[in-house]
Amino acid sequence: MRDESTPGTEVAGSVEKRYDPLAVLISGRGSNLKALIDARLTTPISVVISNRADAAGLEHARAAGIETLVLSHRDHASRDAYDRVLVDALRARGVGLVCLAGFMRLLGPTFCDAFRMATVNIHPSLLPAFPGVDAQAQAVVHGVKVAGATVHFVTPDLDAGPIISQRAVAVEDDDTPETLAARILAVEHALYPDTVRRLLTESWTVHGRRVVFARPA
Amino acid sequence: MRDESTPGTEVAGSVEKRYDPLAVLISGRGSNLKALIDARLTTPISVVISNRADAAGLEHARAAGIETLVLSHRDHASRDAYDRVLVDALRARGVGLVCLAGFMRLLGPTFCDAFRMATVNIHPSLLPAFPGVDAQAQAVVHGVKVAGATVHFVTPDLDAGPIISQRAVAVEDDDTPETLAARILAVEHALYPDTVRRLLTESWTVHGRRVVFARPA
Repeated sequence: MRDESTPGTEVAGSVEKRYDPLAVLISGRGSNLKALIDARLTTPISVVISNRADAAGLEHARAAGIETLVLSHRDHASRDAYDRVLVDALRARGVGLVCLAGFMRLLGPTFCDAFRMATVNIHPSLLPAFPGVDAQAQAVVHGVKVAGATVHFVTPDLDAGPIISQRAVAVEDDDTPETLAARILAVEHALYPDTVRRLLTESWTVHGRRVVFARPA
Repeated sequence: MRDESTPGTEVAGSVEKRYDPLAVLISGRGSNLKALIDARLTTPISVVISNRADAAGLEHARAAGIETLVLSHRDHASRDAYDRVLVDALRARGVGLVCLAGFMRLLGPTFCDAFRMATVNIHPSLLPAFPGVDAQAQAVVHGVKVAGATVHFVTPDLDAGPIISQRAVAVEDDDTPETLAARILAVEHALYPDTVRRLLTESWTVHGRRVVFARPA
């Protein structure tokens, strides 16, 4: 999608590069994949990759006529080897932006360098609070009153890449991890397509850790 | 304000206990003190204590006819000794709830045990993100898109006590630590009096780290 030597720097006149297709990586139900499909982005999703053959989300892709690919991490001896298989599959399809949607494998430097500032994930907390698994339960146990969702660039450090967008969700006194997760998920389904659309259609740069969108002309 | 043996547990019929007066502790300009004064809570502020004689906020107290007291930490050899002087001054005035408002001294176990679940502070971040000093600058450097303010009970662990209330503040792409701090401060000035009023007028309990308000009857 962008010149890898200057990640995140928009080059004037390269707008058409943004129409390199998207890929979505899943491991399970793929509800955020469905939200991305339903958003009808102008940039097509060319492939949905799952590391599990039984991921229910693959059905969303099939129903939308999107190619599906199962690449099991179990078939590869190391994270690096698996990373390379993923990169090869994505490069073969000319993918410009990779969207993780409940993809439960940690991507290593091999992948993250190949798709640097071109891989995004959505996480059900206001990062840097509550990285890792069960973020919503972490939030409930910690007793926060404001939770939320974060879309961020993926780096080899878990849930720690530059933040692209966040949206707050109020925690109610009677919330359980499940009720909070459901409310956050509804926000995710709006935030993720909105954020991907902005990445595809607006100019943006990354300064240090700050992702800055250009003001509309 | 509450039975110390069961902190945070509301005892039916003890409502009048809530009218034990408040104290506010400051070190500087005291803008949150002013917000608490201006809120005209039904519970009076009986004393404002500063650890610095030159704290500008003392003027807000004097203008409102509230007793002021300067207790310098420099006059005491240890944190524990200073804690005891503070506790004695507050107990002598029958204080039920202690509100920190820019008070720049860490309170130790002696103080926190004496006013357990009866000391509150406001912090310019959505804790647990960005505890400690310069929270707003930490947020800008980290690149979060949602910042905020937190009112929490004070424990000996810095900015880590149970969270009573939080409010989110959007971070703009062109924010500096100063512009973000100003926007958070405006939220603090509404959130802090609102939260203190709720603590004084509603029933609440602390379960683990979760502060739960009873639903209005």
